[in-house]
Amino acid sequence: MPFGQRGGPAKGPHPIAIVNAQSRTLAKLVRQMKEGCKKDEEAKESTLCGLNPCLKCLQPDILYHLGLSTDTTDFPKVFGDVRFVCMGGTPGRMENFAYYVMQEIGLKINAATKLRNISEAGQRFSLFKVGPVLCASHGMGCPSISILLHELIKMMYHAKCKDPVFIRIGTSGGIGVEPGTVIITSEAIDGRLNPAHEILVHGVSVQHASQLDESLADEIKMCHDPCKDTYEAVIGRTLCAHDFYEGQSRLDGAFCEYTPEMKKTYLEQLQSQEVKNIEMESLAFAALTSRANIRGAVVCVAILNRLNGDQIKTPHEVLSKWEKRPQELVARYIRKSLYYNENDDDSEQPEDETEGAAAGTGAGAGDTQKAPAAEAE
Amino acid sequence: MPFGQRGGPAKGPHPIAIVNAQSRTLAKLVRQMKEGCKKDEEAKESTLCGLNPCLKCLQPDILYHLGLSTDTTDFPKVFGDVRFVCMGGTPGRMENFAYYVMQEIGLKINAATKLRNISEAGQRFSLFKVGPVLCASHGMGCPSISILLHELIKMMYHAKCKDPVFIRIGTSGGIGVEPGTVIITSEAIDGRLNPAHEILVHGVSVQHASQLDESLADEIKMCHDPCKDTYEAVIGRTLCAHDFYEGQSRLDGAFCEYTPEMKKTYLEQLQSQEVKNIEMESLAFAALTSRANIRGAVVCVAILNRLNGDQIKTPHEVLSKWEKRPQELVARYIRKSLYYNENDDDSEQPEDETEGAAAGTGAGAGDTQKAPAAEAE
Repeated sequence: MPFGQRGGPAKGPHPIAIVNAQSRTLAKLVRQMKEGCKKDEEAKESTLCGLNPCLKCLQPDILYHLGLSTDTTDFPKVFGDVRFVCMGGTPGRMENFAYYVMQEIGLKINAATKLRNISEAGQRFSLFKVGPVLCASHGMGCPSISILLHELIKMMYHAKCKDPVFIRIGTSGGIGVEPGTVIITSEAIDGRLNPAHEILVHGVSVQHASQLDESLADEIKMCHDPCKDTYEAVIGRTLCAHDFYEGQSRLDGAFCEYTPEMKKTYLEQLQSQEVKNIEMESLAFAALTSRANIRGAVVCVAILNRLNGDQIKTPHEVLSKWEKRPQELVARYIRKSLYYNENDDDSEQPEDETEGAAAGTGAGAGDTQKAPAAEAE
Repeated sequence: MPFGQRGGPAKGPHPIAIVNAQSRTLAKLVRQMKEGCKKDEEAKESTLCGLNPCLKCLQPDILYHLGLSTDTTDFPKVFGDVRFVCMGGTPGRMENFAYYVMQEIGLKINAATKLRNISEAGQRFSLFKVGPVLCASHGMGCPSISILLHELIKMMYHAKCKDPVFIRIGTSGGIGVEPGTVIITSEAIDGRLNPAHEILVHGVSVQHASQLDESLADEIKMCHDPCKDTYEAVIGRTLCAHDFYEGQSRLDGAFCEYTPEMKKTYLEQLQSQEVKNIEMESLAFAALTSRANIRGAVVCVAILNRLNGDQIKTPHEVLSKWEKRPQELVARYIRKSLYYNENDDDSEQPEDETEGAAAGTGAGAGDTQKAPAAEAE
């Protein structure tokens, strides 16, 4: 399912050196897809910080909403290679994204198989794995995404993942931006414009900072090509509301106890404070990822400009096209991180079987379509 | 899919009078399933109160997350007969409940058809309709259920529904109750034990009372048969948390900055305040239904006793059995309300075609299995 363009050509090292490095990376990904992670490539511990000290005592640890348990799944083997955790609202969108990112990073699965929802038993979220990329649905609102994040962070811990990057891709209401614009969040703020996620612990309010990783936002922004992409991508503040209607000052909810003028004043105040969009998950996402020392980004398309209205009247086909824009940027970022990062470990030697697979002759679960570098050139 | 027992036999009027009244009700339900609501049986206005005064100006009104719009769906015709709106966390559970309630109220669909997810286009919630009963999934957390409720309340308004009853059926963590016990909520309280749902409107905190309908809770409780049912049903306070781990004082989240002793103290404090269970949607449910003057109830099974632990280790088969208990009580309540209510409108005359359908000879979408009264006798 091709859409949009691939990341631009690499600048710097000689093309042949790049192709060789990329082939090695690809060979490693293919082998990991086929065989899982080997003991010797597992990190000794995950790189996450600040976690619950009791995690190591939970034997087993049941990730209830993901339908997974440490006693029935070998987390280091199955998830130890995860480097990117992408999440979005609906199961369908994340399944499509999983297939899209698979194509974009040059992996493919046996034609007789399909990606499986790994969390089907949990009945709450969908979860797909494509080599180093996990794709999960998170439902709507901070409570829902917080459950997912707690359990994904525990998964990273048990799997001993090294420096995973978490990215939320979604839709939002824009503030003073053209519908279809992609907004990469600099910091998430609440309805009072505070950059903090409040939780109640034992009845006491606890605030966690909701800044996001500045360099990651920049790297994703750089995957946008202003000359070729037909839409804008901007970095800005994101207001996270806890409901879709009153918390976002909509006039079309079942209840509305304010006037259009009060709404206008509030939205203009948001605009003056550099708020670019409103959605419903960024506060919990930012707070929980940063608490664990995980680099996190929120990349949303604006599906309307709230200064011009509340109801989403854009045709379904156009919305579908717009929804793919954050996916496109994030897939480019992942591709670039995997294949164009000079600091990457390139000690892996190509193996016969994976070279075969890379040329499209293999038939295992980790078959690759073609070396992505060849396509990018 | 039969499970559990049907509501007890009616007390009071003569059995023949009851059977006749029930046949008339059933005939009406069957006709409505076949033909939709007739103009003359529509209420002139919905009985809901306190709604957004702008609703009548929205032409069309797009219920975005339900994937429905007033310009493409004739709400009074399609939804005008709805009297019960049942909601629960997952799409699968609510689809099962729809089929179960269909059987329990004596309706069936053509064997060549199946129930359709009416909200499929919205990609967020599932929504099934079985005669006067709507069955919806609400996801996890107050923000998610609040979106559903805003849009269902707007649906009731546009469809001019008369006195709809809203019921949430779900799972929860019990406080000092035997796992498997059903708890019917008297009032929902937040982590500080306040009976109010807080929303931020234009950055200002607004609190809405979260009491639930006392008489409805009693009516549902009366559908429990302490002699025959192998579980207990109690009425009590429900704490609504905004996350599953820290907000519920679990020790097994990705983060945990308190000790087991602090957890114990908090949960014991809850127990001393008559809190029977903890879940994540009752505050928004109670606040939004009572604002609209809708009778609402929350009926949850406790899938563990939080005083004894955090992780849900009960086998899947047992959990499935427990999850059906709230469904069972609510189906009995609906059945009783439809067929055993002396105040019900019984002016509808049986029609030839529906009598045929009631005897199992018809083939339309509204075929009935048999007069439910006959089964209950």
